[in-house]
Amino acid sequence: MAAKEIGIGLLGLGVVGSGVAESLLSNHANLARRVGAPVALRGAVVRDVKKHQTTRSWPFPLYTDASKVLNAPDVDIVIEVMGGEQPALSYMERALRAGKHVVTANKEVMAKHGPHLLALAREMDRTLSFEASVGGGIPIIGPLQRDLLANDLVSIRAIINGTTNYILSKMANEGMDYSVALKQAQQLGFAEADPTNDVEGIDASYKLAVLASLAFHTRVTATDVPHEGITKLRAKDFQYARELGYAIKLLAIATRENGSVCVRVHPTMLPQEMLLAKVDGAYNAIEVKGELTGTLTFHGLGAGSKPTASAVLGDVVNIARALAAGGRSPSLLTPEDSMSGQGATLRSMSELYLRYYLRLNVLDRAGVLAQIASVLGEGGISIASVIQKDTDAVAGTAELIFTTHPAQEARMRDALKRIAQLPVIKEVSNVVRMEPI
Amino acid sequence: MAAKEIGIGLLGLGVVGSGVAESLLSNHANLARRVGAPVALRGAVVRDVKKHQTTRSWPFPLYTDASKVLNAPDVDIVIEVMGGEQPALSYMERALRAGKHVVTANKEVMAKHGPHLLALAREMDRTLSFEASVGGGIPIIGPLQRDLLANDLVSIRAIINGTTNYILSKMANEGMDYSVALKQAQQLGFAEADPTNDVEGIDASYKLAVLASLAFHTRVTATDVPHEGITKLRAKDFQYARELGYAIKLLAIATRENGSVCVRVHPTMLPQEMLLAKVDGAYNAIEVKGELTGTLTFHGLGAGSKPTASAVLGDVVNIARALAAGGRSPSLLTPEDSMSGQGATLRSMSELYLRYYLRLNVLDRAGVLAQIASVLGEGGISIASVIQKDTDAVAGTAELIFTTHPAQEARMRDALKRIAQLPVIKEVSNVVRMEPI
Repeated sequence: MAAKEIGIGLLGLGVVGSGVAESLLSNHANLARRVGAPVALRGAVVRDVKKHQTTRSWPFPLYTDASKVLNAPDVDIVIEVMGGEQPALSYMERALRAGKHVVTANKEVMAKHGPHLLALAREMDRTLSFEASVGGGIPIIGPLQRDLLANDLVSIRAIINGTTNYILSKMANEGMDYSVALKQAQQLGFAEADPTNDVEGIDASYKLAVLASLAFHTRVTATDVPHEGITKLRAKDFQYARELGYAIKLLAIATRENGSVCVRVHPTMLPQEMLLAKVDGAYNAIEVKGELTGTLTFHGLGAGSKPTASAVLGDVVNIARALAAGGRSPSLLTPEDSMSGQGATLRSMSELYLRYYLRLNVLDRAGVLAQIASVLGEGGISIASVIQKDTDAVAGTAELIFTTHPAQEARMRDALKRIAQLPVIKEVSNVVRMEPI
Repeated sequence: MAAKEIGIGLLGLGVVGSGVAESLLSNHANLARRVGAPVALRGAVVRDVKKHQTTRSWPFPLYTDASKVLNAPDVDIVIEVMGGEQPALSYMERALRAGKHVVTANKEVMAKHGPHLLALAREMDRTLSFEASVGGGIPIIGPLQRDLLANDLVSIRAIINGTTNYILSKMANEGMDYSVALKQAQQLGFAEADPTNDVEGIDASYKLAVLASLAFHTRVTATDVPHEGITKLRAKDFQYARELGYAIKLLAIATRENGSVCVRVHPTMLPQEMLLAKVDGAYNAIEVKGELTGTLTFHGLGAGSKPTASAVLGDVVNIARALAAGGRSPSLLTPEDSMSGQGATLRSMSELYLRYYLRLNVLDRAGVLAQIASVLGEGGISIASVIQKDTDAVAGTAELIFTTHPAQEARMRDALKRIAQLPVIKEVSNVVRMEPI
């Protein structure tokens, strides 16, 4: 094969970047055969060259000056695996403007600036691929951009944050408390020292913005996604959920109804027999419902060096083999598929009708249930079940667990405010939304 | 949008063909937006025009003469959804030779003639897409051809025949006998009047040949796949499996080890907690293990008019939008990806080491177990567990259930022949392979 080498430049050499570099080097012969031309790693941009050179010796140059990669004439494809909004965003812009194809794993940049970057790629007639930005090694961007295009999609329900799913699995299966499970996740490298992005649902909201934009051919940005994290969940919520036949997962949900799309990230109770309820540990799963295809579920490792490298390099191979074949960039997207389509409008979550689980700490005396039921009733919220739990004779308190029939989110919020003010209520301990509605 | 119309010709207007035609007509506006040009159905080729015109009136012409579609200058993409080997194969060849792109749902043709057709498509610089040939609405061909390309894949284990999975689910969940479950499947339209292709594992072997060719970049044809159907399974096998903690599924398995690939289709016992064990009814699931990506599972409806139409039209949209953008055919495959790569050699199933479940009907007398154990021992087959079941005092017989540690398939076959000849053996009632090994 005397085909011209395809040059790769790497931005970032952390966990994912090292995985990408290692795979590029060790799979060199296989990749060349699949691409139809050799693929050569020209160099990597890092913050601190010395630090990287002391940990191991890489057979390619390291630079702190990004222009060494972004403007190198022998770089065809730039891989961005630095993470974070800046300087990743400006590097990607510079790469595209310099005529490079770009492959990124950056959900934050894609959620906030995806339409802008895709428009720029289109203008420059270059490809911007981002399979690795959602779901690690699970192919989901590709299927949404290509295989499922004939469908009008109805919903996406996804477990797309491995850190929180690991913590929730520990809480559910071992009765662990949140703080213990978090600490364990941190020790194992599944959670960062500052876990805010993961446990508050921010990471999942970025990923959902990307998925929903593609699935519904409309623009959904990071700020459009209301997100609630897992920090308020207690071991007893898992116990009560189990008694009710449910599991608790942090779900990222996007639904389309009558041409409008609603997005949200929050802990969700799911019937134990649902496939999503069985997704354990660091696994991710994305359920996509289409009018033709019905319910599809994609399950796999949602993070980690190797799975993410699989997604990054899958994108690289596809661009590279189009280049090797003398073709243009492989994905000639229509504006609809550039995360900026006009296929639907956005609708506020407060308009949705959802089912709820409520855990209330109340004074253990007659008439309490009636007062709560009355507030719910005035809000048009119909109770599906009530259980009394954990009566504390000394404190004179008990725990009441309600589940409701579908009720409007806005009305539920109002009702909860009023319930919290009832003198017989010690605390509204937790509220968890339930699926399916 | 003043873009030139993309013309579609349809071969076959049965269950899948009608679904494709309906979606093309009813989703016209959406498809046009996603393609970037209107997509027009020019006509369909059927065996009996009168029959189709009496059932409903289609707003496009029907022909019995295939050349009206295959040679029509205003047809850009030919969709083949007739099924069966001929005349589908020769129509596809003619379509490619006439410069049409081809989209097919035909697993039999792809399993038997995939490499030849893909080479022809390459020669004509046209695209041949076949997402619908495996897994109905589940995107799996696309992910294997594109998203997972950076992986060296290790194994595929798949439930890819909805008919048998429906029957097995009924047998497992409702204790139904095979013949009753089959009849019910036939009444519901899940099984054909002549169910041979499905229940004998032939359909699954076609699909596995397609998947394995793509996954391992090597040529695997239909005749390479040894297949065993589900007709020997009895309600009591499900009962014993459950007692052992297993489910029984018809699995299509392809594994790669030391550069050689082994393929097989047979009923398989799977630990109940495995995702594949939980795939019920008419659902399909394909588990793909890659060196980078780890274990991925794709789950969804594997058959039916609409899911299959989703896959067919997904392929159509992708070809059409490349045409609308003035581009070439979208997938410029390297020879490796044309189901004819040289990435691995094929290895006989008889060389594999597998675990086995044996159900033997034996005379209920002392020493029987020792005789069987002795034959197994001589074959180097180590017993993992034995249970005696269903002693029949009148007949003087009992049932012995063995499970084994990994043993070589060839040796197990020899041992079973010798066991069947022991005077104390009434019948080797069933042998089911177990996963994981």
